[in-house]
Amino acid sequence: MTTYTPPVRDISFVLKELLTIHELDQPAGYEMVDEALVDSVVNEAGRFCAEVIAPLNALGDQQGCTRHPDGSVTTPDGFKEAYQAWVESGWGTLPMPEEYGGQGMPHALFAVIEEYLNSSSSGFTMYLGIMPGAVATVESAASEELKNAYLPKMVSGEWLATMALTEGHAGTDLGLLKTRAVPKGDGSYAISGEKIFASGGEQDLTDNIVHLVLARTPDAPSGTRGISLFLVPKVLPDSGQTNAVSCGSIEHKMGLHGSATCVLNFDKATGWLVGEENAGLMAMFIMMNAARLAVGVQGLAHAEHAYQRASAYALERRQGRGSGDARDPSQAADPLIVHPDIRRLLMDARAFIEGFRALVLWTAVQIDISHGAADKQERREAEALVSFLTPVLKAYGSDNGFATAVAMQQVFGGHGYVNEWGVEQIVRDSRICMIYEGANGVQALDLAGRKLVKDGGAVAARFFDMVEKDCSEAPDWIARPLSDALEDARKAAEWLIANAATDADNIGAGSYAFLELIGVLSVGWMWARMVNIVVSRHDDFAEAKRISARHFAERTLPQTATLRRRVEAGASNLMALEAEAFLRTP
Amino acid sequence: MTTYTPPVRDISFVLKELLTIHELDQPAGYEMVDEALVDSVVNEAGRFCAEVIAPLNALGDQQGCTRHPDGSVTTPDGFKEAYQAWVESGWGTLPMPEEYGGQGMPHALFAVIEEYLNSSSSGFTMYLGIMPGAVATVESAASEELKNAYLPKMVSGEWLATMALTEGHAGTDLGLLKTRAVPKGDGSYAISGEKIFASGGEQDLTDNIVHLVLARTPDAPSGTRGISLFLVPKVLPDSGQTNAVSCGSIEHKMGLHGSATCVLNFDKATGWLVGEENAGLMAMFIMMNAARLAVGVQGLAHAEHAYQRASAYALERRQGRGSGDARDPSQAADPLIVHPDIRRLLMDARAFIEGFRALVLWTAVQIDISHGAADKQERREAEALVSFLTPVLKAYGSDNGFATAVAMQQVFGGHGYVNEWGVEQIVRDSRICMIYEGANGVQALDLAGRKLVKDGGAVAARFFDMVEKDCSEAPDWIARPLSDALEDARKAAEWLIANAATDADNIGAGSYAFLELIGVLSVGWMWARMVNIVVSRHDDFAEAKRISARHFAERTLPQTATLRRRVEAGASNLMALEAEAFLRTP
Repeated sequence: MTTYTPPVRDISFVLKELLTIHELDQPAGYEMVDEALVDSVVNEAGRFCAEVIAPLNALGDQQGCTRHPDGSVTTPDGFKEAYQAWVESGWGTLPMPEEYGGQGMPHALFAVIEEYLNSSSSGFTMYLGIMPGAVATVESAASEELKNAYLPKMVSGEWLATMALTEGHAGTDLGLLKTRAVPKGDGSYAISGEKIFASGGEQDLTDNIVHLVLARTPDAPSGTRGISLFLVPKVLPDSGQTNAVSCGSIEHKMGLHGSATCVLNFDKATGWLVGEENAGLMAMFIMMNAARLAVGVQGLAHAEHAYQRASAYALERRQGRGSGDARDPSQAADPLIVHPDIRRLLMDARAFIEGFRALVLWTAVQIDISHGAADKQERREAEALVSFLTPVLKAYGSDNGFATAVAMQQVFGGHGYVNEWGVEQIVRDSRICMIYEGANGVQALDLAGRKLVKDGGAVAARFFDMVEKDCSEAPDWIARPLSDALEDARKAAEWLIANAATDADNIGAGSYAFLELIGVLSVGWMWARMVNIVVSRHDDFAEAKRISARHFAERTLPQTATLRRRVEAGASNLMALEAEAFLRTP
Repeated sequence: MTTYTPPVRDISFVLKELLTIHELDQPAGYEMVDEALVDSVVNEAGRFCAEVIAPLNALGDQQGCTRHPDGSVTTPDGFKEAYQAWVESGWGTLPMPEEYGGQGMPHALFAVIEEYLNSSSSGFTMYLGIMPGAVATVESAASEELKNAYLPKMVSGEWLATMALTEGHAGTDLGLLKTRAVPKGDGSYAISGEKIFASGGEQDLTDNIVHLVLARTPDAPSGTRGISLFLVPKVLPDSGQTNAVSCGSIEHKMGLHGSATCVLNFDKATGWLVGEENAGLMAMFIMMNAARLAVGVQGLAHAEHAYQRASAYALERRQGRGSGDARDPSQAADPLIVHPDIRRLLMDARAFIEGFRALVLWTAVQIDISHGAADKQERREAEALVSFLTPVLKAYGSDNGFATAVAMQQVFGGHGYVNEWGVEQIVRDSRICMIYEGANGVQALDLAGRKLVKDGGAVAARFFDMVEKDCSEAPDWIARPLSDALEDARKAAEWLIANAATDADNIGAGSYAFLELIGVLSVGWMWARMVNIVVSRHDDFAEAKRISARHFAERTLPQTATLRRRVEAGASNLMALEAEAFLRTP
């Protein structure tokens, strides 16, 4: 059985050769980063995840979590010990604020660890993946008192946190939520309501859990303008008393069985406001944006893990005969890798994974710039780019993470459908990424509506200019299809901006294709930049990079023509069918 | 919770208005079919499946099958009773030969029942879905003695059958199989070996199971030319003795939990040759081709079932606000169906389902012609078309059955990821269709290699001419994109034929894109034909058909440009990377 191998060589190439993060003195945090540090993180965090976390993945899936009659939840065997080892390793504190015990390191380095964690076991990682976003939310919006009381233990990992947003009737539309927060007069609030889909809402890994809960105060306006954010601990730190929060049940899910997805009942639980009243959604979006970027990394991680299993299988498993020199007469059959259609599956995976990894880490550097650049204008420009690309990373990453897992399962034939080879678990685990933290359709609407049309196309134009510049320096075999894709993207963007006013549904009708188009263009752009670096090198690594780049250029970039046509098809036919006509009637 | 509604109206349209099967006197069997018979089958078989089989689906998934220490297998609660009801209903005998107790009805009618069965519960249907192919194999290749001994009870459903092909090391490459068949001197053989992935290899639905087993006689040549087909009953009918076949284990699979996927151990089990020695693969392919067409129907069935659940949810679930008149101020939110991106998912599903259903049933009529037309030339031409389209129906149908299930899951948001809504089960169940009965990559190779290049493009050219003719009669809004797609298909076919000789891997490198291209073209062709029928009608049904057709024309047909470019990319870059370079090394 294949085990997980951290893709150290590829990540090092991106960090050191493409992004040269060890040579930057700016933004804040980068002054600490030299080559030795990059090497140490990339190697040692990888080793930790492969050795400590990856072995839990299959068992976590088979065993799942158990809720006991008293509402307590047991995680799968080994999770508690692995979490303890994670806390002791200190990797979790890497991106956290130094003021509360963190290391203040670049997000670009932590994104690497996020990839390792999710390749090793995304069920396990669900418990801790939220922490950077949760810490950032509390740090930026909560009172000094709350920060001092909670952040040190959240940063150290002694306590974990949850996002408690969704209610049975309020998912995408958080404006519908009903959970109530009534002031108790002492500065605290009594929180009552039922939340669903709270990942790690109850668990046995930490003594306390910090629930970040969206609720309404008594006089709050309806809709999203009346939502406030509260910090509701499982155990009240001052008194040591258990708060009135309980896990009513855990969901039976398609995958991620290692992660306890809880229904949480708040029954006048004590909580404290984080940020201003009625400004809860804004505070929550600090966490949500971090989570969306993390979901993009999950897509990458699932694709990488599935690719590793499938490529190993394709070199071992012998079935059928290759053409010409590929035939090995000493054996009854040749390895699967001789077959062009098996290579198509694996090359599609490589072209997505390596291109998308570069995009993820490039964006992570932009996040670091948006927080820590000395120059305000630079911070703003980076923030606008991150904001533009966040829905793309989330949706294009998770769509292709899942699609890659499905394609890698195909390499195994019938064996891919049975549990023992591990690849069907990746398919089941990765499916949720297209849904949670804002379903991918919502990401597309965010991109096409808020980030493109409402912005008048300004940040998009800047992004397109960046692509154009690198394209102009690239060899013709990639520059030509990339510049065709860029033209499709510009025309599609222009179409959306021009036609949003005539029919409000034109944005939504073209949004998904537009997001896919920007995804293809962005990954193609990263391939052009990587090609520009290795263009005159002749080692095996450079050769492999050129082959993967050419695969993307030949087979993926041409998609943009179809995607542009879908954008330009508009809303009219899509909205034509009467709602009732969608139903099958006897 | 939504229950399954047989799509009677749509199926009736295809059978009666598009294919007018009730007006045909030819091929054999059609003389029995009048409008009342069509209505009766479409309605009554649908009612049976919805009432008797659909209720078993979720429980079958949760409960799965149990193998006991003695090797016996228990199917989920209710399966045995439902199977008995199926036998009593007589629907299974519809397409079976009259000589052995069947009704000799058109395959085009039975394909409808196959759709109903698989929408209702594909786990349950696995046990009986193989029967038409198994009967056809025995009927066409076995001795009179075997036929008389086995066919009456196989036709009536008293006994079920299995395909026992795959071995641990021999899946796609059946030439590697090792199971031995040694003549016992009395006309029977002693069969020894281990088969895997035998669906229904053991079960508690019938007293006897007819295993159709591929094995090698002692002096057989190696490879596929030395494979013979044997009939090996679980119980020897003459003596009533149990044969030396046992179920060693059942697989733990991603889905289809209701179906017992068995490891079968043959230990000098008694069997009889079906057909000539060393001609087993040819006999097996009668069953395999039937099975491949049935898998296409499964894709259709999964897509329809998932679509029904998602469309019902989209009309009930309220979340967010629509634009303009779609806003319902009496409610806090509007139903999902007001959102263009939700409609995109549902319209994609409709456009695939209804177009592909027409293609399935059109092909089923061609199968009937290939068997039962009076004119030999007509039989041959139909057979060539069926042979050309079989891999397309199998692979394009199962790819899109799964993709549609995944898209419909997306409509449910987070609720789609939990078991209770039933849609994640369809995703898990439908995934295997892309793999079994010849993985989809193998289908693509069959199409591009055997059916196109080896044929010199003759049947493809005839198929393209048929598309062109209907295209010329269609309205411009569909004729234009369809004729572009046709041009892409012709050019891609020409490219493959022209470049197969220069590099043998060019076929395999372009085969998948070529299959997808023919899939898109075929479904687009059916849409043009359906549009031509309803073009001057103004009822709601005709209007809905035009809207779905236009959706396919605007958003799916343009894909062919990209697919053609993938075909024409050729093998050179795909085969460039050294095999070892695919592996991630530390």
